[in-house]
Amino acid sequence: MSRFLKEQYQAMEAYTPGEQPRDMQYIKLNTNESPYPPAPSVVEAMTGEQVELLRLYSDPTAKNLKEKLAGMYGVRPENVFVSNGSDEVLNFAFMAFGGQGVVFPDISYGFYEVFADLYAINAEKIPLEEDFSIDYHKYCGKNKLVVIANPNAPTGMTLPVEQIEEIVKSNPDAVVVIDEAYVDFGGETCLPLIRKYDNLLVTRTFSKSRCLAGGRLGYAFASPEIIADLEKIKYSTNPYNINRLTLLLGEKTVEAEGYYQEKCREIEETRAWTAAKLEKLGFTVLPSKANFIFVKTDKMDGGELYRTLKAKGILVRHFTNPRICQYNRVTIGTKAQMEAFVDTLKEVLL
Amino acid sequence: MSRFLKEQYQAMEAYTPGEQPRDMQYIKLNTNESPYPPAPSVVEAMTGEQVELLRLYSDPTAKNLKEKLAGMYGVRPENVFVSNGSDEVLNFAFMAFGGQGVVFPDISYGFYEVFADLYAINAEKIPLEEDFSIDYHKYCGKNKLVVIANPNAPTGMTLPVEQIEEIVKSNPDAVVVIDEAYVDFGGETCLPLIRKYDNLLVTRTFSKSRCLAGGRLGYAFASPEIIADLEKIKYSTNPYNINRLTLLLGEKTVEAEGYYQEKCREIEETRAWTAAKLEKLGFTVLPSKANFIFVKTDKMDGGELYRTLKAKGILVRHFTNPRICQYNRVTIGTKAQMEAFVDTLKEVLL
Repeated sequence: MSRFLKEQYQAMEAYTPGEQPRDMQYIKLNTNESPYPPAPSVVEAMTGEQVELLRLYSDPTAKNLKEKLAGMYGVRPENVFVSNGSDEVLNFAFMAFGGQGVVFPDISYGFYEVFADLYAINAEKIPLEEDFSIDYHKYCGKNKLVVIANPNAPTGMTLPVEQIEEIVKSNPDAVVVIDEAYVDFGGETCLPLIRKYDNLLVTRTFSKSRCLAGGRLGYAFASPEIIADLEKIKYSTNPYNINRLTLLLGEKTVEAEGYYQEKCREIEETRAWTAAKLEKLGFTVLPSKANFIFVKTDKMDGGELYRTLKAKGILVRHFTNPRICQYNRVTIGTKAQMEAFVDTLKEVLL
Repeated sequence: MSRFLKEQYQAMEAYTPGEQPRDMQYIKLNTNESPYPPAPSVVEAMTGEQVELLRLYSDPTAKNLKEKLAGMYGVRPENVFVSNGSDEVLNFAFMAFGGQGVVFPDISYGFYEVFADLYAINAEKIPLEEDFSIDYHKYCGKNKLVVIANPNAPTGMTLPVEQIEEIVKSNPDAVVVIDEAYVDFGGETCLPLIRKYDNLLVTRTFSKSRCLAGGRLGYAFASPEIIADLEKIKYSTNPYNINRLTLLLGEKTVEAEGYYQEKCREIEETRAWTAAKLEKLGFTVLPSKANFIFVKTDKMDGGELYRTLKAKGILVRHFTNPRICQYNRVTIGTKAQMEAFVDTLKEVLL
């Protein structure tokens, strides 16, 4: 830290991304990336000519991509925001709409707390229920920024859309953010509600189900007014926030929807297979609709299991928060990767 | 604007990027992009295999790129920050170091004022001298964030490094940002001063001299403590801020230094040729060390010249600020583009 850093940021704790060790080749089940490459048509779109055009700025309005997303999801382009990853949408949302404070679950995506700290926003953390579910009543009538990941991370558990609607309806003077980063693996989207409520912001990402984590592309749906606010923040921080090639790959991705649907179904099948195997080994497996499962065993401490797996070449994500430190979050990889994972578990636990 | 937007941002005016019209093919001399593609070795680095790896997140530490930049510029990796365009470095710098206020010239990169507004930072704008030069004395002993583009935009004029040193030395309790976005076209860098002063932050970009405007890659040099502060802000907003492919292209760009030096020299030659032609036509041409020139003629109002050129298929950048509204900023393109520009000027003025 320098002696020049603004006092407000001095004690702040930044977000810790999942580790990316280089000491050996790991089976990487720790950052919820897709085990599959982007669709062949997406890969082929990256021609030498396109790379040469990198000399030019990207379209700051992202017109083409917004139109394609609007077409696919049955909304208008004015309902769509695109960003440098959905972390950026969330960042802007905290900045723009956090003035009255924010409320989110105590166990959720760790970045919400970081954003609240960053903007000195008063954060109310509502404990998940004993079974890690969200009691939606506790988020009603707060009239401050509400942020809920659905499916939630790292549990993978979901909230029914009717309950989300109750939350949105009961907070008419505040924005409700539903973070749908993991919605494509069997979850139900609340997107249609943006037609009915002007205070709902739904965030999405190309990082998980669209196999483009390294491309940095997120998006969001909301009323044109909320989108205009996000655009204003974007044009006041980094108007060319998205890589020119990424905009193109995003368009091609939307066109290849069939490929991605197929891969999502494969992930769901592998998830079911893995969960069944783990339950047979005595694991507790939370009911996940995401591309990961959150699991614990009585046979080994959560932190120890994480370290043991790492030593055996398998990376999973362990959180030290006391409430969940017995669990590990395991990304669903290919069937072969999950077989190796299950075999390794047998080896270390049986 | 929604009724939820934080009051602080409601009156704020966002940055206006240069126009990107689609109604016809323009000779685009309005956003200071390079007329040359990235080096062939950079273009070739973008293989299908690399595109497939987009399923994985980028390295949030940008280790390889930092090492390459450190090697090329003779500093340590801890002295290097990399970002999603140099706008992002500037954004973070205003956020982190603007607590005591900020000072910058009245005529400079328009984004400085936007950042000050965004973070509610008191901004002191010091008028450029009559001849558009910067009197460095006016920036000494301010002890608040100082931001100077060198070369300055949109004038292209430079401040000697000795004068920058006086500014840095006389503001020991504040960060001095020298924005060197345009330094590679004949300017002199103040980079060596970071070894001597812990309050100097030098920002750079791959967008201009490195032909990667659409890649979104900026970087900066400073003391390890200032770099650590910028990293903290990054990890609190968007840890994976840079596209995975862009990191790779950045490394390949550093390796192809010879190509880019050659292209910079071509731009300088074309700039000299264009300036001479314009002076012959009676234009006032400010002495530029950037990849653009700032010019005016008594024969036509600045705004009218901009519109006339646009109607003829040539885009330049016009600013409405009364002090410079008789001028236009003209990016240096290829020799052929500048010949077309000069021919068009003759056509409309003679």
